[in-house]
Amino acid sequence: MADSPITSREKDFAAWYQDVVLAGDMAEPAEIVKGCMVIKPNGYAVWEILQRELDTRFKATGHQNIYLPLLIPQSFLEKEAEHVEGFAPELAVVTIAGGKKLEEPYVIRPTSETLVGHFFAKWIQSYRDLPVLVNQWANIIRWELRTRMFLRTTEFLWQEGHTAHANHAEALEEVLRMLDVYAEVAEDVMAMPVIKGAKSQAEKFAGALRSYSIEAMMQNGLALQAGTSHDLGQNFGKAFNVQFQTNEGKLDYVWQTSWGVSTRLIGGLIMTHSDDKGLVLPPKVASRKAVLVPIYRKDEERARVMEVAARLAVELGAHLDAREGLTPGAKFFYWERRGVPVVFELGPRDVASGNIVIKRRDTGAKEIIPQTGAAERLAAALDSMQKDLYAKAKQRLRDNTVLANSVDEVYAILGDVTAEKGGGKFVMAHLADDPACDARIKEFKATVRNIPSVDEYDGPGKCIVTGAPVDRRVVVAKAY
Amino acid sequence: MADSPITSREKDFAAWYQDVVLAGDMAEPAEIVKGCMVIKPNGYAVWEILQRELDTRFKATGHQNIYLPLLIPQSFLEKEAEHVEGFAPELAVVTIAGGKKLEEPYVIRPTSETLVGHFFAKWIQSYRDLPVLVNQWANIIRWELRTRMFLRTTEFLWQEGHTAHANHAEALEEVLRMLDVYAEVAEDVMAMPVIKGAKSQAEKFAGALRSYSIEAMMQNGLALQAGTSHDLGQNFGKAFNVQFQTNEGKLDYVWQTSWGVSTRLIGGLIMTHSDDKGLVLPPKVASRKAVLVPIYRKDEERARVMEVAARLAVELGAHLDAREGLTPGAKFFYWERRGVPVVFELGPRDVASGNIVIKRRDTGAKEIIPQTGAAERLAAALDSMQKDLYAKAKQRLRDNTVLANSVDEVYAILGDVTAEKGGGKFVMAHLADDPACDARIKEFKATVRNIPSVDEYDGPGKCIVTGAPVDRRVVVAKAY
Repeated sequence: MADSPITSREKDFAAWYQDVVLAGDMAEPAEIVKGCMVIKPNGYAVWEILQRELDTRFKATGHQNIYLPLLIPQSFLEKEAEHVEGFAPELAVVTIAGGKKLEEPYVIRPTSETLVGHFFAKWIQSYRDLPVLVNQWANIIRWELRTRMFLRTTEFLWQEGHTAHANHAEALEEVLRMLDVYAEVAEDVMAMPVIKGAKSQAEKFAGALRSYSIEAMMQNGLALQAGTSHDLGQNFGKAFNVQFQTNEGKLDYVWQTSWGVSTRLIGGLIMTHSDDKGLVLPPKVASRKAVLVPIYRKDEERARVMEVAARLAVELGAHLDAREGLTPGAKFFYWERRGVPVVFELGPRDVASGNIVIKRRDTGAKEIIPQTGAAERLAAALDSMQKDLYAKAKQRLRDNTVLANSVDEVYAILGDVTAEKGGGKFVMAHLADDPACDARIKEFKATVRNIPSVDEYDGPGKCIVTGAPVDRRVVVAKAY
Repeated sequence: MADSPITSREKDFAAWYQDVVLAGDMAEPAEIVKGCMVIKPNGYAVWEILQRELDTRFKATGHQNIYLPLLIPQSFLEKEAEHVEGFAPELAVVTIAGGKKLEEPYVIRPTSETLVGHFFAKWIQSYRDLPVLVNQWANIIRWELRTRMFLRTTEFLWQEGHTAHANHAEALEEVLRMLDVYAEVAEDVMAMPVIKGAKSQAEKFAGALRSYSIEAMMQNGLALQAGTSHDLGQNFGKAFNVQFQTNEGKLDYVWQTSWGVSTRLIGGLIMTHSDDKGLVLPPKVASRKAVLVPIYRKDEERARVMEVAARLAVELGAHLDAREGLTPGAKFFYWERRGVPVVFELGPRDVASGNIVIKRRDTGAKEIIPQTGAAERLAAALDSMQKDLYAKAKQRLRDNTVLANSVDEVYAILGDVTAEKGGGKFVMAHLADDPACDARIKEFKATVRNIPSVDEYDGPGKCIVTGAPVDRRVVVAKAY
């Protein structure tokens, strides 16, 4: 598995993705547990970095972490009508525990709004208790029929932020603040450009007034919803009776938000940057930024090379691959498939000349540089690589975004697109926010990704389905 | 709840513990999910620090993090006979998922040795693949009848390390290395002295050759098993057919280990240091090490005090409690119950004299010190507090450890001890490692905590039950 060839993107994008995940030691399917995966060391290391980047920003914006139970009484889900309708088909249900049949079954959390509602009702009495700003890092189960590692798995890891506010304006501010945090981590850390916007009513979270998302474009042109932030209005407040005394002494229901990103981000990362040789990791998400591979043939060469290599590895903060019994070529292959941003090569000739070879994973460009100052060159290479990966992805997004002014045009562009064949586009079209309009494009399996927060196109126009006036074009695409 | 009085330790130790947990904003019971708790912000912040301290040490000793599925096919548990016998009564079982009855139910992991066995068999073929050193941070469910927040809950958070080795010597070295890591974090970070040792055969992990533990003494004299490290031998290797080719070209089963600590550590921390006023946190586990409470009456005082307070808070890295509508007294009470190590007070007189008042949470000692150099005084106070808390706990452990040379003597010391009443001791007695001997002292609900790695007493002696020769005294106590 770790050494098997990688299918090319052109041949079969879906097979390529699976191969990259396996060859990169990112994850493997856990066949014995339906739709689940094992997150392997290289994949979990990326998750740890994303967790740190996100968590730091959550705390900087005033949130505290808590932990709520995995199990939820089944009746809780039913308290919010849209919510249960949305999640009921995906639930895993515990009916036996401690050797006995349970009187009331528990569901494994598919998300925690209902538990949060219950506890908010205990914690919140007065406007003085508001806002409540909490987050949890947790595992989630949603029983999915078709799964793909990281992108859609029965179990996944995520964070879910939950907040309560005294009025709608503050809640909406929070929703958009966290959407910005997600966009910043996606773009600045993952080098993955995204489009921020509101989901259509047909595509919102079950139980929300309005959902917002960041949408990224994968290399096959498919969209990936990479994070969501929900304006829950007073829906859960009413369902769970979360009332507070306002500063005018009246009783009101709290305004809630929830927002989450998951291990799905890692799938987006892989499908944004990786190539036919395997994984490509932007430096900021690579726990191992540089590796040094020593090259020698004879024993006398070995001693000289290893001495300099050991010293340089420390200076460069690079991992020295001193494994015996593996050729340098095998080592290059190994690190390439694992997405290490920079690989150094050091042979007898380099030792003699005071040079070292630096190679970037994304471009494959090799350069011979002096050992003196190599640390600065490494820092510069990592910095350039981070920027170049973003620029390349941004250009791809631009190149594959097109306008359409009729349903036929949208169909002509997206009708045949599949995850396997690729060729996807982001089609900017005027479409009313009406489930009937969503349904029309769903006929050929496309969806409204979001209604961009910032209109970069031609402003108002007529809905391509109903002819009704709408204020901007929306993103239509095939999606994961 | 947050303001309600705290029962004294003397009156009812168990009630005191519950009060401290609630008043300290550490956790609260989640009554609607049997035996579960909500970990509140102050409690989760401690867990994050413990995670970081442990995780850094795991990585420094060569381990990588992975993530395995929450659900385990029920049949997997049955592959290791002792293991299923140990865990079967505590399982939560998922029988319905995605709206359908499952052909084979899944259990929610009570621990992951069986899944690990399955994947190790896929990952390990040759001695070159060994050792495999992995860890996961995860939630666990064990259906418990009697629960106490942090100490024993139906769901808890933990880490579980799993390793595979080519021979028993290396595996045992790993087991003891990780036991040392646990002891170091308990003693150096949590200021909680522990006794390292082997569990008796009667008390070992279900499926292990031998288990090792660290045992701490709570303020009521009860023992708390704070971490365990297991020598699994080849039991799981055989059950899951984890075979590898040795460097002599033969086939052998791997030697495995597993080791874990959980949110239970937080319960131990609380019961080691807290007092009748509430939570006491050693500085190293306090996310907020110092708080500055400004004191003023008149508006003109307010401006002057707040100006200096704001500047000093930055210099000291202290949280400035600028809340309006709360008296200084209410603020002191608030931070005291939350275990903040140091509280500064700054009033008009201090502003005039260039002084500030520093108060330590553990001793309650107040001192007026010059504002100049206050940061150094804070650092020194935190350092002293960390050491003093350890010394105090260590002295308590010494004072409450006694020798006994007959079962009657052990009974006289421990017979009446309960978690509520306290008065517990660590009784050092010669006892053979034979389940019949364990059973004898279990008659009065005491247990063998461990057989200490280092004998600090009088060496060999005769078993107080059988008269058989044993090489050292073991720790007998009532325990959580």
